[in-house]
Amino acid sequence: MASEVAEEWAQGTFKLSPNDEDIHTANERRLKELIGETAGKLHTGRSRNDQVVTDLRLWMRQNCSTLSALLRELIRTMVDRAEAERDILFPGYTHLQRAQPIRWSHWILSHAVALTRDSERLLEVQKRINVLPLGSGAIAGNPLGVDRELLRAELNFGAITLNSMDATSERDFVAEFLFWASLCMTHLSRMAEDLILYGTKEFNLVQLSDAYSTGSSLMPQKKNPDSLELIRSKAGRVFGRCAGLLMTLKGLPSTYNKDLQEDKEAVFEVSNTMSAVIQVATGVISTLQIHHENMARALSPDMLATDLAYYLVRKGMPFRQAHEASGKAVFMAETKGVALNQLSLQELQTISPLFSGDVSHVWDYGHSVEQYAALGGTARSSVDWQIGQVRALLGAQQA
Amino acid sequence: MASEVAEEWAQGTFKLSPNDEDIHTANERRLKELIGETAGKLHTGRSRNDQVVTDLRLWMRQNCSTLSALLRELIRTMVDRAEAERDILFPGYTHLQRAQPIRWSHWILSHAVALTRDSERLLEVQKRINVLPLGSGAIAGNPLGVDRELLRAELNFGAITLNSMDATSERDFVAEFLFWASLCMTHLSRMAEDLILYGTKEFNLVQLSDAYSTGSSLMPQKKNPDSLELIRSKAGRVFGRCAGLLMTLKGLPSTYNKDLQEDKEAVFEVSNTMSAVIQVATGVISTLQIHHENMARALSPDMLATDLAYYLVRKGMPFRQAHEASGKAVFMAETKGVALNQLSLQELQTISPLFSGDVSHVWDYGHSVEQYAALGGTARSSVDWQIGQVRALLGAQQA
Amino acid sequence: MASEVAEEWAQGTFKLSPNDEDIHTANERRLKELIGETAGKLHTGRSRNDQVVTDLRLWMRQNCSTLSALLRELIRTMVDRAEAERDILFPGYTHLQRAQPIRWSHWILSHAVALTRDSERLLEVQKRINVLPLGSGAIAGNPLGVDRELLRAELNFGAITLNSMDATSERDFVAEFLFWASLCMTHLSRMAEDLILYGTKEFNLVQLSDAYSTGSSLMPQKKNPDSLELIRSKAGRVFGRCAGLLMTLKGLPSTYNKDLQEDKEAVFEVSNTMSAVIQVATGVISTLQIHHENMARALSPDMLATDLAYYLVRKGMPFRQAHEASGKAVFMAETKGVALNQLSLQELQTISPLFSGDVSHVWDYGHSVEQYAALGGTARSSVDWQIGQVRALLGAQQA
Amino acid sequence: MASEVAEEWAQGTFKLSPNDEDIHTANERRLKELIGETAGKLHTGRSRNDQVVTDLRLWMRQNCSTLSALLRELIRTMVDRAEAERDILFPGYTHLQRAQPIRWSHWILSHAVALTRDSERLLEVQKRINVLPLGSGAIAGNPLGVDRELLRAELNFGAITLNSMDATSERDFVAEFLFWASLCMTHLSRMAEDLILYGTKEFNLVQLSDAYSTGSSLMPQKKNPDSLELIRSKAGRVFGRCAGLLMTLKGLPSTYNKDLQEDKEAVFEVSNTMSAVIQVATGVISTLQIHHENMARALSPDMLATDLAYYLVRKGMPFRQAHEASGKAVFMAETKGVALNQLSLQELQTISPLFSGDVSHVWDYGHSVEQYAALGGTARSSVDWQIGQVRALLGAQQA
Repeated sequence: MASEVAEEWAQGTFKLSPNDEDIHTANERRLKELIGETAGKLHTGRSRNDQVVTDLRLWMRQNCSTLSALLRELIRTMVDRAEAERDILFPGYTHLQRAQPIRWSHWILSHAVALTRDSERLLEVQKRINVLPLGSGAIAGNPLGVDRELLRAELNFGAITLNSMDATSERDFVAEFLFWASLCMTHLSRMAEDLILYGTKEFNLVQLSDAYSTGSSLMPQKKNPDSLELIRSKAGRVFGRCAGLLMTLKGLPSTYNKDLQEDKEAVFEVSNTMSAVIQVATGVISTLQIHHENMARALSPDMLATDLAYYLVRKGMPFRQAHEASGKAVFMAETKGVALNQLSLQELQTISPLFSGDVSHVWDYGHSVEQYAALGGTARSSVDWQIGQVRALLGAQQA
Repeated sequence: MASEVAEEWAQGTFKLSPNDEDIHTANERRLKELIGETAGKLHTGRSRNDQVVTDLRLWMRQNCSTLSALLRELIRTMVDRAEAERDILFPGYTHLQRAQPIRWSHWILSHAVALTRDSERLLEVQKRINVLPLGSGAIAGNPLGVDRELLRAELNFGAITLNSMDATSERDFVAEFLFWASLCMTHLSRMAEDLILYGTKEFNLVQLSDAYSTGSSLMPQKKNPDSLELIRSKAGRVFGRCAGLLMTLKGLPSTYNKDLQEDKEAVFEVSNTMSAVIQVATGVISTLQIHHENMARALSPDMLATDLAYYLVRKGMPFRQAHEASGKAVFMAETKGVALNQLSLQELQTISPLFSGDVSHVWDYGHSVEQYAALGGTARSSVDWQIGQVRALLGAQQA
Repeated sequence: MASEVAEEWAQGTFKLSPNDEDIHTANERRLKELIGETAGKLHTGRSRNDQVVTDLRLWMRQNCSTLSALLRELIRTMVDRAEAERDILFPGYTHLQRAQPIRWSHWILSHAVALTRDSERLLEVQKRINVLPLGSGAIAGNPLGVDRELLRAELNFGAITLNSMDATSERDFVAEFLFWASLCMTHLSRMAEDLILYGTKEFNLVQLSDAYSTGSSLMPQKKNPDSLELIRSKAGRVFGRCAGLLMTLKGLPSTYNKDLQEDKEAVFEVSNTMSAVIQVATGVISTLQIHHENMARALSPDMLATDLAYYLVRKGMPFRQAHEASGKAVFMAETKGVALNQLSLQELQTISPLFSGDVSHVWDYGHSVEQYAALGGTARSSVDWQIGQVRALLGAQQA
Repeated sequence: MASEVAEEWAQGTFKLSPNDEDIHTANERRLKELIGETAGKLHTGRSRNDQVVTDLRLWMRQNCSTLSALLRELIRTMVDRAEAERDILFPGYTHLQRAQPIRWSHWILSHAVALTRDSERLLEVQKRINVLPLGSGAIAGNPLGVDRELLRAELNFGAITLNSMDATSERDFVAEFLFWASLCMTHLSRMAEDLILYGTKEFNLVQLSDAYSTGSSLMPQKKNPDSLELIRSKAGRVFGRCAGLLMTLKGLPSTYNKDLQEDKEAVFEVSNTMSAVIQVATGVISTLQIHHENMARALSPDMLATDLAYYLVRKGMPFRQAHEASGKAVFMAETKGVALNQLSLQELQTISPLFSGDVSHVWDYGHSVEQYAALGGTARSSVDWQIGQVRALLGAQQA
């Protein structure tokens, strides 16, 4: 008969009565209609205090699986794109100033790698969500010797809670989830910020697809990056929910207090937001256009001064001296009003006799990025290694 | 010679010069004084961007070990006390209203169990701290083919970072640590709140030792629970640091921006606060006096109405009916102006014929708590089980 | 014809079309149906950027008036109660320890006075809400020489915004409102916390009416203070909205960005919450029962040790010495195992010859509170003064 | 003799003793050394509870005056610059996309106007700081009939607190100050964000002076905007302090609890940060270089499409139709591959016969901005009006 009630829910035919206090009493009432007084046994050894938190854990466990899959899909989309476009170079920025040539894929992977940490953390949070509190009663535990390990196995939880007072009133798993979402949103917001900048007329490195931006018949050249702005703004909202719940929890004495019912709206809103935002981010990344020529054009010889120093280091000069020598070359070029790569070999040799004909390789951007072959760097081999590492992580997390 | 410099730091004889920009340039300058220009090789393939984050991770890794040990010591103190005092009963409160008799140890363990989650989480955070970014350079990686796996092994890190842009600018591990501290403080604050209440004249269940409270010659009966109030207040401060860092991170584009240097003060302040607060909490718990008689006196028969219902359930009555029957008994006692346990067997039998002589056991508080023998409950066996579980966890975490 | 459209809205007969982008285009579309192409003039010199913020300000201005009235009603309810019950004494607590006898009204007024600051601040926030941005266009201003002072007068705003870029993108008034709500909720939460404590079995000073608490047929003595717990919990939620919006604002460049549309949900949710919470608080206060006898019984002679010192001060002894003398009396009473007021005059005179027969007045709680006649104290005259002051404030704010 | 103690403090010769609990007991101890037991009268009718909050208010009152002056100095610097450079045009951005030509001064004023609200709010906060709690004792008030109005006048406060319980435990003025700082920092952070963007190689509109940026001998073209990044990052820290204090306050019962002593570090840190940040901002603004030619070059005819529509509106066409017509012109130019201003009059007339020879004025950027002459717009007259308004506000606030 319990299965009949379940069927009614599944079919959408279950009728709620205005007198049903909550879903548990509704089920019991319905069961009573079907089988009579025996339905009164349903609540035996239970309490709303352990039931609501069990319900919430069940819901969140399922939801975390959904979010995990969406997040992995986003990461996979990014990695695929990184693999496809790994020969495109553009400026790497620090302090928003052009710093060194890097692969476009290296930028994509920098965000993908951050998201793998979110993916890992979500599994850890889910592990702590997946602990069964049922059998904790209102506060003291279950007085009828219920076999909680059996309940755990039947409901497919990973463990049971250890202490009934704690089990009915702790919401660590909610706080952890909200913080997980806040940190993940910080990553998505930073990526959105980069793309908003790269999509300005001034940077002009990428262009959002029409589906993810808003144009104007009057200003067709103006593409407002609405999708990215929404991602960016949701980071605030999600963090607000985390901050709000923590403030509520912090002010409580132990055990169940009604204040705890604030947990659900926070979880539902943040879950919905994360689901939407991750999917929008996936859409943005998979449809984004990049302007190859502008990316290439944004590179300039002055971004290679560090490479010039390393040229000397490779010839045996201690780094500090090489740094100084390169600085002199930069100054010489500035004084002469030419680009750094237009200094002649003779001119360079007045700075150091270690300069020779092979210095011309330094001015090749493709050659430049290939130097960064140590693991994690922007050389092609290292980018391939990153792609492999992230794919392996995704595979392991999916298992 | 590097070891000579290290020795100078260890002896406190290292002299900083006003021209030293930071610790790295100070070391290089000193090394140059000792060995000449070759010292200029020290910075080869390094950048302040990867060095500062390596330093911070080294510091935090060590600090997390210290905090972990302090936290386990606190939990151990609580568990020891729970074991020693497990035959003392007092009221369990929900909504700050007296609900059911529980073991005092059950209360202690409810807080200890919460702290084991913090202890577990700290190890997870530490795992993500323990990842080596060195070799990431300023943004593009290391151009001299440094063997980062070798660096990792020498510096005893668990893994290396995957992407140089991410490695030099992500501060997830800082945010995670600050959130870890915030959630842990929430637990300590809730425990402090309980003890502040239990220490009022009105509850009068516990008394702080003089070392952890402030008296007054004029009001010797008034013991201000300063230590507990400080624990409670620090939760706000710690969360503030977490919120502040997240806000700073959220507004950044990718890669290194100077904004990131806000990380260190936050980490240092929160680390110091956590260390102090955990030790104060350990001191409070180990020296706290409890008022046995007041605890016993705070129990009353009306807290056993649920037990009376379960008495009938055990005799075969469905829970809803048993709940109703017990409600009738409560009403009868109220009407007659007697305590619930003073209703005669005859009177009870007018409510249900299932009542018999053994109903007298219901009024025994010791008997009451023993019913909650399901795992996680307040029966002695279950409390012992909890103690065993927590000790096993501590052992596993220490390993 | 515009009035016809307005009438349709008022009657609820306005029909939205799926193609209406927002309320402004809906109105224009409808007007066009009624009067033809001339309706196309409606948007002249306007932009969604200045329209949405004008709408929000109009809504909030109205809402602030509603909240102000509700808040004044709550304060008035408290002041009326303070006036009616001003001869009831009970313990004033500091650090949750019994400190000195005070009037129950003094406690009520302590919370009412805090709320008058909220009431004052809300008017200041409303003043800054009540500034007209219309005529700012999208960013550069209005190109048709619209008379913004005329608009201001017609829409009954207090002032016009000064700079069109700022006007379309600043949400200070939203942040201020959310912070106002957060601080106000902090006050209500602290009052709720007090009442939850005072309503425990242990304090037993007050009792919530049934309408604002939840009982149980099994535990009729247990009254869960649900209303107060909800007030307390909403403080977290409201602050979360404030924190979230600030984080969103903080990360933006200037002028309009889509992120700003997060403002509305925050404002609507917080406004609704504040309205509900203030009304619940009013209901709680106006229906709360107090237990006179328990309040009286909670006073004890040891709370008068400070008064004993002041007795000596009034006889000319410097305060430090008087404090010491009173401490000696406390110690003597403790040693003899009697209450402080049971020391004989002879015994007191061994401590100081300044003690004489009139020391017996010290032990009168009514006499004690009357000493605190300086403005702001707990003497009846001062409580009356407070009532007068708060009523005058309410009158002035209402004007 | 009190003046002698004051003199010692002023001279820096006051010697603290290890037994001095705080500054109040130190002063009393010292006075006792000078005048004997009579010094014991100093603490008469006082309590640490009302003293510490009086001290904090005195300190903050002074500090707010300092911060107000610094803030007005920053605004004045901005307004002076706006006046000097009001004929320079550059693109106004919305969504970080080029939208319409505006005056550079209009941008400066958009931030200055935001800061005038901070300046106004700080005065309101200061007004609530400037209320005297002295005479509130520990909780119940002052028992010796102290004339609090006299104290108020002597200490130059604007009002006295109304209720002693509230006065000793409310920290609204601290929370308000911290929120004031948080909102002000949001403004400074947004301005910093704009300038960081405008200072990139890609925007290249402004350049920080060397004193406020960090160059590199290797990359002299790279100017890290350290000063702006620090401003931006401090917004997080300051908000963190606000959030932390609110969380602490929220969890307290009424009256004095030791938790409140968290207030001081928050106030001191935030005050110092605000003082430093405002001065740095003033330095940045007063030394900033702007690149006139780049600003001019960044303007393009496509930013005038809205103006083209308004041209038709002025000729009598309803706005919606004019908007459509302008859209057609944009499309025609795009199709022909020419700039919008290169369409011939004949071509335009195929779209609407209302176009005539004077359409050429539309393509003049100087003419464009002058259209926005409604108050608050970017026309010169309106910018002058803004300058006048802000100067008047500063004058009024200074009075």
